Amino acid sequence: MSEGESGHNTGTPQGAPKEGPHSGGVSRRGLLARVGAAALIGAGTGLGAGEVLAPRADTAADTAAAPRLRMSGAHAPASGPGRLQPGITGTPPAFAHVLALDLADSPGGGGEGGGSAAESRERAAEVLRAWTAAADRLREEGPAAVLPGAPSAGLLPASLGVTAGLGGSLLAAAGLQDARPEAMADLPSFSTDALQQEWCGGDLLLQVGAEDPVVAAAAVQHLLGRAGARVRVRWAVRGFRRTAAAAEDPGATPRNLMGQIDGTNNPARESSLLQRTVQVGRAAGPAWMAGGSYVVVRRIRMLLDDWFGEDSGHRERVIGRDLPTGAPLGQQGAGAEVDLTARDAEGRPRIPEHAHIRLASPQNNLGARMLRRGYSFDEGWRGDGTRDAGLLFMAWQADPARGFVAVQQNLAEAGDALNEYTRHEGSALFAVPPAARNGGYIGQDLLES
Amino acid sequence: MSEGESGHNTGTPQGAPKEGPHSGGVSRRGLLARVGAAALIGAGTGLGAGEVLAPRADTAADTAAAPRLRMSGAHAPASGPGRLQPGITGTPPAFAHVLALDLADSPGGGGEGGGSAAESRERAAEVLRAWTAAADRLREEGPAAVLPGAPSAGLLPASLGVTAGLGGSLLAAAGLQDARPEAMADLPSFSTDALQQEWCGGDLLLQVGAEDPVVAAAAVQHLLGRAGARVRVRWAVRGFRRTAAAAEDPGATPRNLMGQIDGTNNPARESSLLQRTVQVGRAAGPAWMAGGSYVVVRRIRMLLDDWFGEDSGHRERVIGRDLPTGAPLGQQGAGAEVDLTARDAEGRPRIPEHAHIRLASPQNNLGARMLRRGYSFDEGWRGDGTRDAGLLFMAWQADPARGFVAVQQNLAEAGDALNEYTRHEGSALFAVPPAARNGGYIGQDLLES
Repeated sequence: MSEGESGHNTGTPQGAPKEGPHSGGVSRRGLLARVGAAALIGAGTGLGAGEVLAPRADTAADTAAAPRLRMSGAHAPASGPGRLQPGITGTPPAFAHVLALDLADSPGGGGEGGGSAAESRERAAEVLRAWTAAADRLREEGPAAVLPGAPSAGLLPASLGVTAGLGGSLLAAAGLQDARPEAMADLPSFSTDALQQEWCGGDLLLQVGAEDPVVAAAAVQHLLGRAGARVRVRWAVRGFRRTAAAAEDPGATPRNLMGQIDGTNNPARESSLLQRTVQVGRAAGPAWMAGGSYVVVRRIRMLLDDWFGEDSGHRERVIGRDLPTGAPLGQQGAGAEVDLTARDAEGRPRIPEHAHIRLASPQNNLGARMLRRGYSFDEGWRGDGTRDAGLLFMAWQADPARGFVAVQQNLAEAGDALNEYTRHEGSALFAVPPAARNGGYIGQDLLES
Repeated sequence: MSEGESGHNTGTPQGAPKEGPHSGGVSRRGLLARVGAAALIGAGTGLGAGEVLAPRADTAADTAAAPRLRMSGAHAPASGPGRLQPGITGTPPAFAHVLALDLADSPGGGGEGGGSAAESRERAAEVLRAWTAAADRLREEGPAAVLPGAPSAGLLPASLGVTAGLGGSLLAAAGLQDARPEAMADLPSFSTDALQQEWCGGDLLLQVGAEDPVVAAAAVQHLLGRAGARVRVRWAVRGFRRTAAAAEDPGATPRNLMGQIDGTNNPARESSLLQRTVQVGRAAGPAWMAGGSYVVVRRIRMLLDDWFGEDSGHRERVIGRDLPTGAPLGQQGAGAEVDLTARDAEGRPRIPEHAHIRLASPQNNLGARMLRRGYSFDEGWRGDGTRDAGLLFMAWQADPARGFVAVQQNLAEAGDALNEYTRHEGSALFAVPPAARNGGYIGQDLLES
């Protein structure tokens, strides 16, 4: 009865994916994507032919027009420095499912579950091999190709992109502690934490982004089916942003559910600052992470009723920006460089002392930088009547200690005025290795070391 | 500190909306919408100038192009037969939040809570007055107009539409049992029910649809703020469909999360059959529902892992349709009229005896018809590891006894093959009165009777 096309209800883990050899028959789409990739790499600046350096064919403005196949670059050429996986530096698509998974026999608590380290390592390799192959096929053949009668049959690629990462608990379970870089140290506690264990950690990260919610949901179903009984979902959030089609200015930085224009201060697209901020350099080590990145995920619930109960002047002073335009208070334009020294006629600072943008600014954090790429979430109401909506904060950086950790410590200790309206209830850190080599899989250099 | 712009955390219910008199200054957009509405009504067929008869400016194909203001028609002219509210017969937008709310002092259980019937009636009227006014303003001024710094600032209307309805428990609590039409009788039990009370019933229905998820979420936040402490959320589902921009053929009927092409057999757009199916006629009574409709909402969890674990032939026989094309088995094209008599060369029925489309067909249900307008939902995984995704089934009809009830009874009793893969866990029935008269509010004829 069962072809096992996508079922992960079968007790027996499936072997290698059935897609057939990719080195053989290459589809027209796949060929185009590869030719394109090679051309882009040739045109790179030599800093590392990563996704960050590719000319962006996927700007928000394009997204508003007819949808088109997007080159999501899961495979790097066999030689050359590692490239970032998709889903890190490009224009964020409107939807992203973010899932943390544990190996079925390893409850994410450091290998106390059943199964030897070798078994855990092999199981993780099987999952990442299956995901790499499935992500390839989704990219090359489109989201409808995964199985007959998929929910995504008849739908276009819609910028579908898959990102996979590894948590510290996986390295522990797989006996790979020695390969764990310092950058992957557990995040410290922050005084403002309100963490709930059910929303923290995870052996594996799976991020599936798309411009269309059905394309994303179908890909998640398929990828979990490929992983089979080897994993179970630890936590999952379905993130969203405004669609480009609905924006008066598709190039403008979107607002989160508080109405805050979120991400204004990110490093500029295609800048070398962006690359230095996000991508792990060869010198930083270890080798398995060269060209990869680290992502900090925080599930931040927003107290939206409290927030929108405040008058608009108060909300502006909490953020430090004009609400309608997003301009720093006392300045013009959302994109204006924040001037923390500006004072009004009475000599008071234009940006209040505890305003979020003052305390989060690079000037106040020893130049710490990260690429914020968060999504809103709205999971309705909990049983006790609490509204469960907010920001799935995601920050990408080459070194969390000099990125998220530095900034968050300052926000917590110096008393960010925004803290009153937010609750950090979930937290995780994942190493996101570079894209796979041809014929290889994500994380191979670690798991086969 | 508080302007109470949208806060429903304040203990004191807010009075009438502050938007100012709409009979006075009419915005340019509002004026356009009204001129347009008048013109459309003039062009109607005389059967009742409802949304069903208006030329569709909101086809799915249009949605793929640049977004535009949508005339959502919350207000009917002061004279003439009642018109349907928006969100019933037009092209369904990609996102719909569907919420059931209880009056804060009436736990939806038939008026056992505090507060007299007169108080409940007044409270319901306040909420519906506030929603009608807010829906007007959202339509006329766009989703950003609701408050400074809304998440939807800078976003286009994106087909934003608001629908409000009333549950039987509200009529009981408000002492309006005598006004309760037979069509509003509680749904019977079905042998396949697996209902959980937390997902059933509700005093009030609020449906907020939009092509953009942030536009929808911001409108929900605003509308709940307008209702203030008078209501609490009983259950809520964030529904989605594929976006038109992602569809190879935006005119094709979309698939649900099982991959089933869902809604093929609906009455055709702009047909008199559609109107007779959906809209309560004047003769049917009561007067407060003339021109309105009844909606049955079922939260149907899908056992997706089981479903996609079956081979494609089996899935086709369960549904009765070809998976890739959606054509009835043995026929051509998804739109083909289902031929239940067709047999293969060996004389066996082409559409198996227990196939879903056979048992759900009008031929097998004494001609029962309804307009299905469901949404997918994906709420992740429950604490026990159960996948919480499926179909928010919504069926609109003039009389549920001759629509949903007749069909569902047949599906349950005759053994629909699909039952094995679905669980009906939530259920509700709401009366959805016609659009408000100018200066009036939805449900006024009932609540002021």
